Amino acid sequence: MSGLATAVPAPLAVSIGDPAGIGPEILAKAWEARDAAGLPPFFAIGDARALAAVWGGPVEVLSSPGDAAAAFARALPLIQVDDPGEIVPGDPNLAGARCALDSLEIAVGLTRTGMAGGVVTGPVSKAQLYAIGFDYPGQTEFIAERCGISAANAVMMLAGPSLRTVPVTVHLPLAEVPRVLTAELIIAKARVAARALVRDYGIANPRLAIAGLNPHAGESGTLGREEVDILRPAIEQLLADGIAVTGPLAADTMFHAAARERYDVALCMYHDQALIPLKTLDFEDGVNVTLGLPIVRTSPDHGTAFGLAGRNLASPRAMMAAIRMAGDCAARRLAG
Amino acid sequence: MSGLATAVPAPLAVSIGDPAGIGPEILAKAWEARDAAGLPPFFAIGDARALAAVWGGPVEVLSSPGDAAAAFARALPLIQVDDPGEIVPGDPNLAGARCALDSLEIAVGLTRTGMAGGVVTGPVSKAQLYAIGFDYPGQTEFIAERCGISAANAVMMLAGPSLRTVPVTVHLPLAEVPRVLTAELIIAKARVAARALVRDYGIANPRLAIAGLNPHAGESGTLGREEVDILRPAIEQLLADGIAVTGPLAADTMFHAAARERYDVALCMYHDQALIPLKTLDFEDGVNVTLGLPIVRTSPDHGTAFGLAGRNLASPRAMMAAIRMAGDCAARRLAG
Repeated sequence: MSGLATAVPAPLAVSIGDPAGIGPEILAKAWEARDAAGLPPFFAIGDARALAAVWGGPVEVLSSPGDAAAAFARALPLIQVDDPGEIVPGDPNLAGARCALDSLEIAVGLTRTGMAGGVVTGPVSKAQLYAIGFDYPGQTEFIAERCGISAANAVMMLAGPSLRTVPVTVHLPLAEVPRVLTAELIIAKARVAARALVRDYGIANPRLAIAGLNPHAGESGTLGREEVDILRPAIEQLLADGIAVTGPLAADTMFHAAARERYDVALCMYHDQALIPLKTLDFEDGVNVTLGLPIVRTSPDHGTAFGLAGRNLASPRAMMAAIRMAGDCAARRLAG
Repeated sequence: MSGLATAVPAPLAVSIGDPAGIGPEILAKAWEARDAAGLPPFFAIGDARALAAVWGGPVEVLSSPGDAAAAFARALPLIQVDDPGEIVPGDPNLAGARCALDSLEIAVGLTRTGMAGGVVTGPVSKAQLYAIGFDYPGQTEFIAERCGISAANAVMMLAGPSLRTVPVTVHLPLAEVPRVLTAELIIAKARVAARALVRDYGIANPRLAIAGLNPHAGESGTLGREEVDILRPAIEQLLADGIAVTGPLAADTMFHAAARERYDVALCMYHDQALIPLKTLDFEDGVNVTLGLPIVRTSPDHGTAFGLAGRNLASPRAMMAAIRMAGDCAARRLAG
């Protein structure tokens, strides 16, 4: 509308996830709230009947994603994948899993070619995906492969209004964490995180805080050696790289309000160390972001919630936060 | 003042902790705030000069703790221990450590005999105590022994306005946690916690939530076996005991506001699992309570903060919360 042209990203591609989960509902609710919440334009990739099963609002099936921006004001734009047949909310089946995988694949493909500004992935059921032959640990590894990068360089970050955390190890039994943790792993994750906070979040000199593995960050080696043998060498290397890193910090005292002012992202050594503070503070607004990809990718940080599906009870807040964050990151990449 | 006699506990005994730490200052500030904060009567055990070094308010040295209640309105009542000589805030020495240990010992003794209603322990430096020959892991084990009970039955609980947590294992390297965790240990801690919530907190049928050790509580054994092999048998035994216990729960989703409504205490498998949510939510108001003792014992959940001592910067909030909680627990025991 302005005489000055400003580059804006293409609309975001949102895969609906498992169509029997809450994905269709929260996506529809996000579209309804688009103006009030100031969401960037997006389009759904999935199944029109799955949306209609939980929502009476307008859906516009697109023949091309190029039509999404114009349609967004009047309807939820949709790229229809192969018809999965009837979808019953809360009752997942294999056709639905195929729909979820098709949605994901098309969303990534459109974003890789620039026809979408970024990917927001709806929640999937890994058990259902495995049942149709999907052999990646999760959506993230699939996306990394489709982007031609190593899954090791695709770094999960959880981001909410209060906090950003990166789990250095993720889906491992707790007993395996000390065996898997290495300085190299911490360094690799930290480097990806530092670069991404510059490029995608506009933080010129990101401050990283490294959580200790042991209670009180090991108390100088008396409560565990990993801080001395693994974390400190990693921190020294990162400082030598010019990254603003502090630690190892006692994990229990680094997540209260005043402590959170001192860093832009907390690198945590295991799943719950990263997820407990994030979900304690930002349970409804948590976004799962994949850093280090050539494309922007976010996801609401919750599951399919099959038990909630079809009851009009699901909160779209995390989906809205994921869409907003993807839009912001995409705009920064375009400007950068 | 009323015509109806109501039994009230004797004043609480508050040990000042290491006199070179923030203990004297936060205790003095708590006394200043006694009326506004509605604190129960208490008296200090420690050193008058250490108090005078950081505070200009009135101190009344008692010849007997029986005089504390009358003195409390006009001055901070104090039982003087052996004079440690000059105390320099922020600069701990061995005489100060002896003062801290004397204070603790007298506080426990007076409470055991009923001359104090409960013990509130100020922060000590374990390194300083070890240097004078103290050979307990911490104050709690010392208190348990003086009370004639096994340290294994003295259970640490962290309590704030938002949350109560019990760490089933405490000061261990993370790698040792899976090796130390047993069903028996969980059962023992849970039984003590359940009894104490009835007796000291007036919760008729306490609800215990048991956190899983592994991410997502192990996902039915695929992310670790401890939930299947250790936690579930413990939970079954506790249910058979008639204790209202749920779990194992995914630790990351059990500490947001709605989840916290579902239990009265969370049993956590290791230090940071218990302390991260507590200090994230209630950093300034965290109380460390010892459950299972024949006496009431609380403590502010922070250290000596030598770096802060003598600068009038320390917050008395945790000390005030510890005093208030000790008074409440003592009153419930008296009424019960």
